[in-house]
Amino acid sequence: MLKTALCRTWLSSKTSFNTFGRRCFGHGNVSVDLQSDTGIATVTLSEPPVNSLSGEFLTSISKTMKELSADSSVSGLLITSKFHGKVFSAGLNILEMYNKSDSYLGEFWRSVQEWYIDTYNFPKPVVAAINGHAPAGGCAFALMCDYRVLLDGKTIGLNETQLGIAAPFFFTYLMSSTIGIRQAELALANGTMFSSDQALQANLVDEVVPLDLVIPNAMNQLQKMIKIPQPAFSLSKGQFRGPNVKKLLGEREEDIATFVGLLQKPYVQKVLGKYLENLKNRKK
Amino acid sequence: MLKTALCRTWLSSKTSFNTFGRRCFGHGNVSVDLQSDTGIATVTLSEPPVNSLSGEFLTSISKTMKELSADSSVSGLLITSKFHGKVFSAGLNILEMYNKSDSYLGEFWRSVQEWYIDTYNFPKPVVAAINGHAPAGGCAFALMCDYRVLLDGKTIGLNETQLGIAAPFFFTYLMSSTIGIRQAELALANGTMFSSDQALQANLVDEVVPLDLVIPNAMNQLQKMIKIPQPAFSLSKGQFRGPNVKKLLGEREEDIATFVGLLQKPYVQKVLGKYLENLKNRKK
Amino acid sequence: MLKTALCRTWLSSKTSFNTFGRRCFGHGNVSVDLQSDTGIATVTLSEPPVNSLSGEFLTSISKTMKELSADSSVSGLLITSKFHGKVFSAGLNILEMYNKSDSYLGEFWRSVQEWYIDTYNFPKPVVAAINGHAPAGGCAFALMCDYRVLLDGKTIGLNETQLGIAAPFFFTYLMSSTIGIRQAELALANGTMFSSDQALQANLVDEVVPLDLVIPNAMNQLQKMIKIPQPAFSLSKGQFRGPNVKKLLGEREEDIATFVGLLQKPYVQKVLGKYLENLKNRKK
Repeated sequence: MLKTALCRTWLSSKTSFNTFGRRCFGHGNVSVDLQSDTGIATVTLSEPPVNSLSGEFLTSISKTMKELSADSSVSGLLITSKFHGKVFSAGLNILEMYNKSDSYLGEFWRSVQEWYIDTYNFPKPVVAAINGHAPAGGCAFALMCDYRVLLDGKTIGLNETQLGIAAPFFFTYLMSSTIGIRQAELALANGTMFSSDQALQANLVDEVVPLDLVIPNAMNQLQKMIKIPQPAFSLSKGQFRGPNVKKLLGEREEDIATFVGLLQKPYVQKVLGKYLENLKNRKK
Repeated sequence: MLKTALCRTWLSSKTSFNTFGRRCFGHGNVSVDLQSDTGIATVTLSEPPVNSLSGEFLTSISKTMKELSADSSVSGLLITSKFHGKVFSAGLNILEMYNKSDSYLGEFWRSVQEWYIDTYNFPKPVVAAINGHAPAGGCAFALMCDYRVLLDGKTIGLNETQLGIAAPFFFTYLMSSTIGIRQAELALANGTMFSSDQALQANLVDEVVPLDLVIPNAMNQLQKMIKIPQPAFSLSKGQFRGPNVKKLLGEREEDIATFVGLLQKPYVQKVLGKYLENLKNRKK
Repeated sequence: MLKTALCRTWLSSKTSFNTFGRRCFGHGNVSVDLQSDTGIATVTLSEPPVNSLSGEFLTSISKTMKELSADSSVSGLLITSKFHGKVFSAGLNILEMYNKSDSYLGEFWRSVQEWYIDTYNFPKPVVAAINGHAPAGGCAFALMCDYRVLLDGKTIGLNETQLGIAAPFFFTYLMSSTIGIRQAELALANGTMFSSDQALQANLVDEVVPLDLVIPNAMNQLQKMIKIPQPAFSLSKGQFRGPNVKKLLGEREEDIATFVGLLQKPYVQKVLGKYLENLKNRKK
C-alpha cells in the first residue's frame, strides 16, 4: 500500500524513481506507475471528480499513451480510475460541448480522435480495470482496451442518444465489433446502459467481479498477455484495428465537421443545456 | 376494442378522423391507425390470405412508409398482420416470379428494393409484432424493423434456398448483422426455418410471447423507444443502416439484372412451378 | 467396415472402382472415397504423422478439391483425418518456414493461398469431422468448411502468436466471421486454443461428440445439406464467401510479400528455430 501511495504522488511530465523499483510519471491528471521488473504500467485516470474527458484531460492521456508506446521497457498497460468503486470515467465532458465556437468544438473533437487513435492502436496489451461506472466515452475508453474487468453493480454503455447526440462512427464500430452489429445498433439507438450482469451476458465485458478483485484480475489477465511473443501480439492486434484507425485518419477533417455541425444544432444545444442545468440542481 | 374495430375500417389512400382521436388511412391492403396522443402508428398488413408480397402490395407498403416518414406527427411504427395467430407474412409472392417476362420481373424486383429501402431506412423506431409465421420475405420484413416480438410456436427464417433461389444481398446482410456472419451463412445456405425458441436463442428475435402479448409487448417497447430524443435516435440508426441503403441505391440496376437472370434460369422456373403445383394440390 | 478398409487403399492420382460401388482416388497423401449412390466424397487427410501442411501436401489437397469441384457426380464432402482420435491437422508445417529462401517461402505461401481458395470456395457442402486436435492451420482448415463436428476433449484454435507469427488476414476473417470480431481479435492475439467445450460455447464448432460419433454426425449433417437444391446452396454460400476469395485473388502477390517479409524477420526465425529444437528434444 505504501509503495503505491508513494509512487502515485503526482508528477506532471516529470519522471522520478522511488526506492521500490518503480518509475512514476504522467501528464496532467494521468498518473503512471511502471513496475520495472514486469514492464507493466498502471495508468490511473485522476481528473476530479469523475474523470470527465475534457480536451485537456484527453490530451494528457494521448501524450501518456504516446510515451508509453515509445518506451521499449513497457510490456503492457492496466488502465483504471482513481475514483475506485465510484466512476471509471463519466465520458466526454459536456461543458466542452455547450455554448462553444466552431473552432473550439473542432479542437475538442480533434483531441477525442487523438485519444481514440493512441489508445485503440496501442501496440501492446491494454487491460481495463473498470472500477466504477462507465457511461458514453467512459464505455468507449474501456472498449478501446483488449480486455475488460468490470466492478459488479456498475453500469456501462454508449448512452449518447439519451443526451440528444449520437456516438461518432468510431465509437459505433467499437461496440458493434464487440457485441455484434444488431445488438450494437439497438443499444446505441436506445442509449442503453448495461448492468454489470447484462454487460457480461452481451460480451461487452469479460469479467464482473467484486471491488477487491477488479485490479488483481485485470493484472492477472495482463500478466498472461505480456507473455505472448510481443511482435506477434502487436501484429495480430494491428490486423484487426489498423484498418479502422486508418479510416479515421483518412477522414479526420470530415469527421470533425460532422461533429461540429451536429453539436451546433439548436436542439442539441438545448438538450445539453438542460442536462447541465439538471446536473447543477442535483449538486445543490 | 371498439375503437380499433372502427378505426381499421378500410380507407384506400383517404384519411379520416374518427371520434376517438385516431386518424385512419393507408394504401391498398395496408391500413394505418395513428394514435394522435402518442404519435404511434399501427401498420396492419392485410393482403388476403397470408400477406404474400406482390408488387402491388409492396408498392402500397412503400407508399405508406413514405407518408409516415414525412408526417412529423408520427413518433414510431408498430408493424403487424391482420391474420393474427396465423401468418405475419408468407414472403414474396411466388406467382410474381413464375413464367414472367424480364421486364415484369424487373419491375417486381424494383418494388422489392423500394420496400426494403423505405422500411429499413425508416428514420423513427419500428417494432415488428410478428403474430404468425414469417418465412423468407416475411422474415426479411421483420429484420428491417428495430425490434421483434414473435408469437410463441411460430417459425421465422430466410428459407429461400429451399425453393431453389437465393436471398438477395440486402436480405443476407439483414440476417448476418442480426445473428452473425457464419450463423447467417449456415441458415441461408440450409434455408433454415427457426422455431420460436431457436429464433430467441439466436437473437433473431428479441422476445417470444403468447398470442395475447404480441401486440402489447411490441407496443411497450415502442413506447420506450419513442422517448429517446428522436433526432439522436434517427442519427444513430442511420449510422448503421445508411451505408447499406446507399450500397443498394448505387447498384440498383445491377441488382435487378442479377435477380432477373437468376429467376429466368430453367431450373429455378422448374422449382417454382413445382412449388406452385404443390400449393394448388394442397388447397384442394 | 470392410468396404471402407478396402476403399481407402492408397492410390496416388489413380482412380479405381471397387466392388462396392465406390470410386477411390486422390492425390499424394489425400485419399478420396466417393459413394456412387449419394455422391458424398470422404476426403481423408493422411500425411504422417500429424497431417502437417507442407507445400506438397497442400498442393495435393488443392488438386483434389479442384477435381471434386469439377465432378458433377459429387454432392458434398466430408473432410477428416486418418489419425482418428489423435490429430485432425497440426497446421502449417514449420519446417517449410525455417531457414528458407525468399522464393521457397513465396512458393509455400502460394500453396497456402491455393488451399484456402479451393476449400473455402468449394461450391458444394463441406463438413469437417474434426477427429483430433486442430491447432493453427488445422483450425483454419475446419473453419473453411460449412459445418464442424469436433471430437470431445480435443482442442482447436488459431494459436499462431504463440509461435511468434501472426495468422494471415484470410485466417483472421475465417475466425471473426465465425465467432465475432472481438472474440476473434482476443483469441488470435492471445493464441488461444479452445477446449472442445469452449469451442462449442463460442460457436467455433457446431457439435462436440465422442469418437464413435464424429464421422456419423458429420455425415448426417452432410446428408441434410446435399438435399438443398444445389444451385441455390452454391449461390447462397458464394454470396458470403465470394468477396473474401476475390479480395485475396486481388492482392495475392502483396500477401505473399507480407508473409515472406514477416517470416524472414530474425526474431521470427529465432522463435521457429527454438520451437523446432523443442520438438526434436521432445521426440528423443
